[in-house]
Amino acid sequence: MTGKVYLVGAGPGAPDLLTVRAARLLAEADIVFHDALVPEPIVALAARAEKVAVGKRCGRHSTAQRFINKRLADAARTHKVVVRLKGGDPLVFGRAQEEIAYLRSQDIRVEVVPGITAALAASASLGTSLTQRGIARSVAFVTPRVGAEEGPSRWLEAAMAADTVAIYMAAHEAPTIAAALIAAGKSAATPIAIAEGATLPAERTAHGTLGELPDLVRGATGPVVILVGEVYRALAETLVPAKVGIQAA
Amino acid sequence: MTGKVYLVGAGPGAPDLLTVRAARLLAEADIVFHDALVPEPIVALAARAEKVAVGKRCGRHSTAQRFINKRLADAARTHKVVVRLKGGDPLVFGRAQEEIAYLRSQDIRVEVVPGITAALAASASLGTSLTQRGIARSVAFVTPRVGAEEGPSRWLEAAMAADTVAIYMAAHEAPTIAAALIAAGKSAATPIAIAEGATLPAERTAHGTLGELPDLVRGATGPVVILVGEVYRALAETLVPAKVGIQAA
Repeated sequence: MTGKVYLVGAGPGAPDLLTVRAARLLAEADIVFHDALVPEPIVALAARAEKVAVGKRCGRHSTAQRFINKRLADAARTHKVVVRLKGGDPLVFGRAQEEIAYLRSQDIRVEVVPGITAALAASASLGTSLTQRGIARSVAFVTPRVGAEEGPSRWLEAAMAADTVAIYMAAHEAPTIAAALIAAGKSAATPIAIAEGATLPAERTAHGTLGELPDLVRGATGPVVILVGEVYRALAETLVPAKVGIQAA
Repeated sequence: MTGKVYLVGAGPGAPDLLTVRAARLLAEADIVFHDALVPEPIVALAARAEKVAVGKRCGRHSTAQRFINKRLADAARTHKVVVRLKGGDPLVFGRAQEEIAYLRSQDIRVEVVPGITAALAASASLGTSLTQRGIARSVAFVTPRVGAEEGPSRWLEAAMAADTVAIYMAAHEAPTIAAALIAAGKSAATPIAIAEGATLPAERTAHGTLGELPDLVRGATGPVVILVGEVYRALAETLVPAKVGIQAA
């Protein structure tokens, strides 16, 4: 018997922001391999599954990835429903491709179930469209690797060219990122917003200007999305409260 | 009494790709205003609600938008749970901001429930990451307005600068878009993929090169997402089937 591996997006953190399909697959799963950062209440939805944390926090990424690939394939040979649960959407900064390619090379069926990616959750919390008629016709999702690149910095080019930018996994490098954007020509007065742990109980949102970015993210301990663009000007200029939660009704 | 308006993402089309929260709100809704393009099985989840189609297909966008704003506010004054249901995610090319701003100006509570946007659904169907380690660190979502802009074309700049590009609502202008990208310097051999009606029963995916784009979308009748970038090269170069469905298990 060979089972099937479902690469499932866990969404931004709130358990009810899983898709209906993802929730069903978790309930049916025989075994779940989850990233260390997926909140426990979501993992717990896999009531009858063996649960395996496969965080990649030790800094030895490639070894860990090969090990995960192998474990997924082994699991599919002995289980019917294997779920690989990843934060957000599996195909946005999720390193899913190595797993898909390896499983296919082993003739194991793979299906991807999309999830709400962090930029969409942050936007919902802020009540602000990533694209807004008359202001923004493009949005770029980027993850900077500051200082590690040679030649022209592709993430910076993408960030400069798009009307709205969502920067993932960058809280620790916020001062460098703000400096890079300003050096590339973005005004320090460009409106920005941030969301930390969007949709989680400890969610925090804030807004200001690009020059204030280091202050806005200081002290963040959860995952942060940094949003940059003119669409965020209204957060500062109107009486709209900065924090608009999306708690369940 | 004043109710609350929920701007809810209907996702890409498959009813089980709604979020759990969206499905619950539909079930609880007293009245639902839905875009004409939201599939009927999703609208039908609002079992007890009055259902109002508010498509904007007549070409008189601003008048229609003002009318929708007013109807939403009126509904919130006489109903407890008002759902405004939009295809995909409400904050990605969804024109939600006008509705949010108007409702807030009327002191009506608004909450946004995110949805799976078309590019994520298309990526799941293709089994291909929008970002892929070593190949793509940025992805731009754009919606071109070909020929209607003066000065430098911002969508084109964003599309050229990002490693991967997802082009929304552009099937009818595919030849012009391909020509614009090639004229701006993208090779006609750049790998692309398209997904029409991703996650719907009649889903169709295809891949090829930028030069072949007009042929790939020809005859499309459903919503199409065009994906451009090196991450799609593997679709052509390996034995991976072009069509990898995400049908329910």
